[in-house]
Amino acid sequence: MLKFEHDTFLEYVGKEAVAKREEIEKVVDEISAKGYKNIFLIGSGGTIAMMYPFEYILKSNSTVEVHAEIAAELLVMNNRHLSKDSVCIFASVTGTTKETVAAAEFCKAKGATTIGFVAEPGTPLAEAVDYCISTGHEKHSFDTFFLHLQLLTFRFIHNNDEFPQYEQFAKEIALLPEGIVHALKTFDSRAEQFAIRHKDTGYHMLVGAGNLWGNTYSYAMCILEEMQWIRSKSIHAAEFFHGTLELVEDDTSVILFKGEDETRPLVDRVERFAEKITNELFIIDTKDYPLEGISEEFRKHFAVNLNWALTGRISVYLERERNHPLELRRYYRKMEY
Amino acid sequence: MLKFEHDTFLEYVGKEAVAKREEIEKVVDEISAKGYKNIFLIGSGGTIAMMYPFEYILKSNSTVEVHAEIAAELLVMNNRHLSKDSVCIFASVTGTTKETVAAAEFCKAKGATTIGFVAEPGTPLAEAVDYCISTGHEKHSFDTFFLHLQLLTFRFIHNNDEFPQYEQFAKEIALLPEGIVHALKTFDSRAEQFAIRHKDTGYHMLVGAGNLWGNTYSYAMCILEEMQWIRSKSIHAAEFFHGTLELVEDDTSVILFKGEDETRPLVDRVERFAEKITNELFIIDTKDYPLEGISEEFRKHFAVNLNWALTGRISVYLERERNHPLELRRYYRKMEY
Repeated sequence: MLKFEHDTFLEYVGKEAVAKREEIEKVVDEISAKGYKNIFLIGSGGTIAMMYPFEYILKSNSTVEVHAEIAAELLVMNNRHLSKDSVCIFASVTGTTKETVAAAEFCKAKGATTIGFVAEPGTPLAEAVDYCISTGHEKHSFDTFFLHLQLLTFRFIHNNDEFPQYEQFAKEIALLPEGIVHALKTFDSRAEQFAIRHKDTGYHMLVGAGNLWGNTYSYAMCILEEMQWIRSKSIHAAEFFHGTLELVEDDTSVILFKGEDETRPLVDRVERFAEKITNELFIIDTKDYPLEGISEEFRKHFAVNLNWALTGRISVYLERERNHPLELRRYYRKMEY
Repeated sequence: MLKFEHDTFLEYVGKEAVAKREEIEKVVDEISAKGYKNIFLIGSGGTIAMMYPFEYILKSNSTVEVHAEIAAELLVMNNRHLSKDSVCIFASVTGTTKETVAAAEFCKAKGATTIGFVAEPGTPLAEAVDYCISTGHEKHSFDTFFLHLQLLTFRFIHNNDEFPQYEQFAKEIALLPEGIVHALKTFDSRAEQFAIRHKDTGYHMLVGAGNLWGNTYSYAMCILEEMQWIRSKSIHAAEFFHGTLELVEDDTSVILFKGEDETRPLVDRVERFAEKITNELFIIDTKDYPLEGISEEFRKHFAVNLNWALTGRISVYLERERNHPLELRRYYRKMEY
């Protein structure tokens, strides 16, 4: 597969990421024992998008109070729920994202307990937080962040007596990377065909819901817009019928991110509409891929990881077909503003 | 002014809307006295967007627990915070929006206290809720909803001992419609010029933050997309620099919604960037308009109403210049999906 090393993925995500389980549980158990009032999930761009699934998961599986906030807004808005009894969770691949580092310092100054996920220890975010979990590599760091956030989130829910299946869940997580690699092999040619067909498409609509809303938002903004300079609109499946639908014509590219949680019927509904109108409907459905060793009841939670990995295949083929490096930026970190 | 009747606005929003003050306070006082655990703001499309400012206002002015949820998602997601101790607030101009009516029935079945804002009493949403506040007219109903939600929200905050200024605030609200009319007169020719200049523009970027994020999201989806079939991307000012900025070129239309709350510096930052890159930057800044009789400390809360009214001027000129009626739909309520 283009730009994909099977062995590296299984080494980084399959082995090293999973090996952090005990470390993560220790952090969560310590905080749960001490007690806390609420959890803040904080990030910027791709990393706030990465937090949204866990906001959804907490809301729909737990009575723990959760807030997902954009770092730069949190710094100014005077959020009255943020206090010394908050647990604040951050992520930044480079560990240097300005607003995220500033937000971590801000929350710490308020007396909150802070946890950071970064690629490399020793970076500013890693230094700013009380607890730092590092992936050790920038490569596949989001795949690892997802795994770590899953362990962390469900451990908090477990400790709140709302997830007795935690032990089984954490055991199965170790099998996920292998399942993802199998899915990638199956999906890869579809990703390539999509990129070939759409190399000149100037606008895409992305639709998702539930724990895939974050990925939907992120793929539009951080991949299509930032890395390919292609216009895109991410729209929640539950909102699609309140405006965006009117733009769909027979050649409009509509991409659906389908997962397996409670919101699946909302995406089904968009699918029923879109297949009547456009010839350019592209569906990425996690249900199409077996994940060996993963219990049916947990599959919905892993749609995030699987969708993330699958859509990553589209990115590398878009890069190749459009001759537009994913790293190319016009402005970000290239000028002052 | 095109399609604007000064007298009707002052009659509906200035007089009739304001006259509901006592009725709204009675509802809130009754609920506050009984006690509640949290507030759910629920809507679909334009009406969930209308709730976002009040989510922001509650978060930044009160410790009352607040949730803003899309109606269709709330119906399926099993939100663990929704209970008989929740206060659920809905709005629908027609009172018939399917998911919103279903969500009101759903919340009521859970034993929650429900409040609905509609244009006409006797409509399904009005019938489904415990308390119904009606505007009496579809015309200017959003302007009225904003006023009513302001009275309701700040009354809840006041009853929670966090807004001692309530009396003064509620008194000043009565002066707001007159101030808005003055602002509209000043802004009107700018709106017209914008519409003339951009009648063939096929894509707009809309940026806002804080209590104007809802309007930003809504203007893109419910006006440009739904009513004018123009592609648009709404992006939060705090997120703009994490992807969308890369799309800006010298002829890209970037529209900034500037308000006066704590997040203003985030929009300032986008302005500093955009003015360097594009010749098509258009700023709608509430600060440019005096609002006679409104205290400085309350102005930020009224940015929502003012921005809503101002941007409405753009809509009517876009309609005229593009010869595209705002009521025209291809699909919504015209086909089954």
